[in-house]
Amino acid sequence: METDRLEQQLKFLVEADKMKTVLRQTLLADGSRRENDAEHSWHLALCAMVLFEYAYCDEVDLFRVLQMGLVHDMIEIYAGDTFCYDYEAMLGKEEREKASADKLFALLPYDQGVYYRSLWEEFDEMETPDAKYAASIDRLQPILNNFLTGGHTWKLSGATSEDVYKRMAMIKQGAPQLWSVVEYIVNESIKRGYLER
Amino acid sequence: METDRLEQQLKFLVEADKMKTVLRQTLLADGSRRENDAEHSWHLALCAMVLFEYAYCDEVDLFRVLQMGLVHDMIEIYAGDTFCYDYEAMLGKEEREKASADKLFALLPYDQGVYYRSLWEEFDEMETPDAKYAASIDRLQPILNNFLTGGHTWKLSGATSEDVYKRMAMIKQGAPQLWSVVEYIVNESIKRGYLER
Repeated sequence: METDRLEQQLKFLVEADKMKTVLRQTLLADGSRRENDAEHSWHLALCAMVLFEYAYCDEVDLFRVLQMGLVHDMIEIYAGDTFCYDYEAMLGKEEREKASADKLFALLPYDQGVYYRSLWEEFDEMETPDAKYAASIDRLQPILNNFLTGGHTWKLSGATSEDVYKRMAMIKQGAPQLWSVVEYIVNESIKRGYLER
Repeated sequence: METDRLEQQLKFLVEADKMKTVLRQTLLADGSRRENDAEHSWHLALCAMVLFEYAYCDEVDLFRVLQMGLVHDMIEIYAGDTFCYDYEAMLGKEEREKASADKLFALLPYDQGVYYRSLWEEFDEMETPDAKYAASIDRLQPILNNFLTGGHTWKLSGATSEDVYKRMAMIKQGAPQLWSVVEYIVNESIKRGYLER
């Protein structure tokens, strides 16, 4: 065992603890506080497992999806969470996240840094079957919590149903059988006054 | 698609949100607050990925370890977290957790309930190669945070180095190359006054 290698791995894993302090706009389902990136990543991975039968094609590899889901938001340790309905903040997102990835994945031994960075890039590009399914579940998890908390993040941003459908569009590709859940939530949210038509 | 099936799955996934409110004794690495089960499960899964080369044998299947890690503490949604150095509380742990598992996994469609319950049982019994490695990493993640927070949970319970070595013993089996990390942390913690000899 190379001690240096293990030290690098442990440093990365300690730095990872900061995910627990990166706050998202989404609230916990009980509305008590904002969710953080570590909680979101766990919940996303669990959803990906339980809902795997709805992945859009047989090529989706759940093992890779779980790995992708577990690291997909780690670049937010330095870049912070960018609120998806804040279109101005979204403008500088790409550059911020690339700089963060440079810093974060360099903590790992070279081979692992390359591997985890490529998983993050693959997720971000949303082009492979694994990334399409992972990104679909990344959209679904917060919409559930948002519905359960009276449309909290939609109200924060004044989002309309059109904004939400646009944000959720990946689900049509990556897990089309789950689109009915999005439609139900949007329609019910409009009825209940959680969301603007 | 069976609507009932999807409804059951979504109910389980919404119930899962409660993992974010089950507090452990371990603090975040920055000492700011107690860690919760969702955060711990995410961190454990990440550690299992990054440290996989130290798994004790070739039969360990990381895909199964990740799934196990993601669900291993879910029974605490109803049973609560049992502090591992509180030997009195540990006495009723098994019964509490079995009752919780009965309730929790029954939320899922039957086939999935059986599958996830068996993953939890396998983890809990710590007999298969996957469970031995998963349980090793489940010991390692909190000892890192505990060291970084001045031995917080050891001080809470008055744990000695013997208690810690006993609690960590699984690492010798499941990831023996990581035992040097445990020894370093215990020795350094005694020196710094974080832990009783």
